[in-house]
Amino acid sequence: MNTGVGNRSTGLLTDRYELTMLASALRDGTAARRCSFEVFARNLPGGRRYGVVAGIGRMLDALADFRFGKAELDALEENGLVDSDTLSFLADYRFQGEIDGYPEGELYFPGSPILSVTSTFADAVLLETLVLSVLNHDCAVASAAARMASAANGRRLIEMGSRRTHEEAAVAAARAAYLAGFSATSNLEAGRRYGIPTAGTSAHAFTLLHDTEETAFRTQVEVLGVGTTLLVDTYDITEGIATAVRVAGPQLGAIRIDSGDVGVLARQAREQLDSLGATGTRILVSGDLDEYAIATLRADPVDGYGVGTSVVTGSGAPAAGMVYKLVEVDGKPVAKRSQHKTSRGGRKAALRRHRETGTAVEEVVYRVGEGHPEPELGPHDQKLHIPLWRDGAKAPGVPDLQQGRERLRQALVSVPWEGLTLSRGEPALPTTFLP
Amino acid sequence: MNTGVGNRSTGLLTDRYELTMLASALRDGTAARRCSFEVFARNLPGGRRYGVVAGIGRMLDALADFRFGKAELDALEENGLVDSDTLSFLADYRFQGEIDGYPEGELYFPGSPILSVTSTFADAVLLETLVLSVLNHDCAVASAAARMASAANGRRLIEMGSRRTHEEAAVAAARAAYLAGFSATSNLEAGRRYGIPTAGTSAHAFTLLHDTEETAFRTQVEVLGVGTTLLVDTYDITEGIATAVRVAGPQLGAIRIDSGDVGVLARQAREQLDSLGATGTRILVSGDLDEYAIATLRADPVDGYGVGTSVVTGSGAPAAGMVYKLVEVDGKPVAKRSQHKTSRGGRKAALRRHRETGTAVEEVVYRVGEGHPEPELGPHDQKLHIPLWRDGAKAPGVPDLQQGRERLRQALVSVPWEGLTLSRGEPALPTTFLP
Repeated sequence: MNTGVGNRSTGLLTDRYELTMLASALRDGTAARRCSFEVFARNLPGGRRYGVVAGIGRMLDALADFRFGKAELDALEENGLVDSDTLSFLADYRFQGEIDGYPEGELYFPGSPILSVTSTFADAVLLETLVLSVLNHDCAVASAAARMASAANGRRLIEMGSRRTHEEAAVAAARAAYLAGFSATSNLEAGRRYGIPTAGTSAHAFTLLHDTEETAFRTQVEVLGVGTTLLVDTYDITEGIATAVRVAGPQLGAIRIDSGDVGVLARQAREQLDSLGATGTRILVSGDLDEYAIATLRADPVDGYGVGTSVVTGSGAPAAGMVYKLVEVDGKPVAKRSQHKTSRGGRKAALRRHRETGTAVEEVVYRVGEGHPEPELGPHDQKLHIPLWRDGAKAPGVPDLQQGRERLRQALVSVPWEGLTLSRGEPALPTTFLP
Repeated sequence: MNTGVGNRSTGLLTDRYELTMLASALRDGTAARRCSFEVFARNLPGGRRYGVVAGIGRMLDALADFRFGKAELDALEENGLVDSDTLSFLADYRFQGEIDGYPEGELYFPGSPILSVTSTFADAVLLETLVLSVLNHDCAVASAAARMASAANGRRLIEMGSRRTHEEAAVAAARAAYLAGFSATSNLEAGRRYGIPTAGTSAHAFTLLHDTEETAFRTQVEVLGVGTTLLVDTYDITEGIATAVRVAGPQLGAIRIDSGDVGVLARQAREQLDSLGATGTRILVSGDLDEYAIATLRADPVDGYGVGTSVVTGSGAPAAGMVYKLVEVDGKPVAKRSQHKTSRGGRKAALRRHRETGTAVEEVVYRVGEGHPEPELGPHDQKLHIPLWRDGAKAPGVPDLQQGRERLRQALVSVPWEGLTLSRGEPALPTTFLP
């Protein structure tokens, strides 16, 4: 099923310093020290109220391919980047430690320990770049997409931003948007790789190619059926709609408007469609929409939104700000001294407290390990970590994309209503860090 | 050499509507119409003065792999996305048209015809998504990176943003940053795939792993040599620098400061290093730097910058805003009717006019084809299009990455000085569109 990165080694999708640190640690024996690294975000971008965990499934697939084969070892050797002991270590490398973390679709807040990686230093340090690349990208897209889904309030959202981002990032973005509540993607590879429904019918070029709009519509309806979506704004929208209904009949599936003041145009279009008897024809709008534009259109007769640039680029926050920090060495907490950045040492996990009604009230982050008894779990509370990696492979029972989608739906229902607003503010839940 | 996307089909890295348009156009015969598509940006983001063309080499590699093999055809057939005529067409598909365009490292301005694609509609329409994905990403990164290089004013820039973007986008971002004047990347795959110099020594985790900063430094120097870069801000910077020089001697290659007010800290560090006799030890700074932060540090004794998030995400403009528009059908110009968006029909090329001194003064965009004589070329003027794709393959003589890097260096020298400022304003050159 995975035809992408998964087919080859992901070993070199890595910063050089991970390998030089490994080489040094192998030399002085610290490579074998038992370490815990933690992935978390110091804050949420732009006053957002929550983040969405995404990319866990992709990350685990990429870790399964995080091996160093002959090609990778040769490349490292040729450039003299590491010594022969390090090359030997890499030749046998497969991550043997444990990873626990938040499942996909779970919410996160500043300081939430999204991932806890425990193993030798040598094993764990290598994962930093790849783990962060996947999570920083996918969480950024899903976090923006979830706000769009809230703004759309049940109306259909189609991700169509492939052309606005790197061609492989596009496939991952489609996945993250779907996780966060989008209904479909324009990206065919995302359809193949992840089973996400795909959508798309025609662009302005198809109309321009033809001698008239009518001949273009006629062919499209002949090939794709009357249920298709006709793009009506290449020339005059009113004429476009009239032609569309004349050609397809009142059973026309949908029209799409891609430019202009889409709210005004949607109202006019609805009236015109209804007057032509096409009362069931849906109205899709697209063109530089973001969560605010979607929210603004709530009162207008729009049935679905096509969203491009803003969703694939995280709507102003293209990286989620996740970091991968060493928090524990041989059972002792460690942290960089810093005046400005919050770093809390020690291996940690988290739980979410809820009222009896199901409303979430607090994220509790607590220390894990000897001398740190687990906090008491109330009847409505929920532990947030699940096992993600065990015995050199993805742990059994890691939820899939569909389950992640459902988890997010439920998690958003549990958030206090102020936490779902688009306006800037405090995180939807406060986080308590137990000592 | 290319171990990434190039090893497999890129055919499905495509929006579904490209294939449905193909299917419809095959049905009514318009698929065979002779078309020109043009790639251009309507404007430059955020009042920038110029954009940098990047990704042409990657795009041509991706086009060479833009084929539909059994796996791709099966995926399309299974989902009933296209009819059997379309599947037959795709089975034999290889882009047979011509592509001309700006070489990598060239500057572009609003409306510059970066790419001109000429072929049948069927052949050309399929390329839209992949072409735009590559160019929108790579041009965004290179355009931001070039501003950073200007701001750095000859000081060394290292791209270290892999962890802040999708894992494959990271490799492309390293390439685009290098094209734009960065000296090195942290990304090992970019080193392997594109021959870009790599850099990196250690993170805070390496110091935290050890019992003392001194033991960490001692091992690093033993393994990587005294020419290495020691990260001195895990605990107290002044002590860190003292320890670094004590361990490595005054021949220490460099120190890195990753947090705090790096300007102040760099001045203190320079004084301290000099007082310890380490007058040749360089000072590298990193930590949320962008072009403005780099410019602000101009007066401080900084020898190099490590840049992460801002460069790989295009410093506020993660997509370059390139579009792929049908501009000509069977020799006749076409354009969507639009009140807000500028679309100019007709196949076009461009030249840049220069003063005798070499200073560029104007971008001239002109029509190409029957009835459109070429504008006169002055002795200091330069045609901007080169052949990029001919006879089903990359055209001979397309410049490589190193040549693109040199082209940009020269192009920036030719821009009037106001065009190189970081502040918002008009494009560095005006563009004239000949009728």
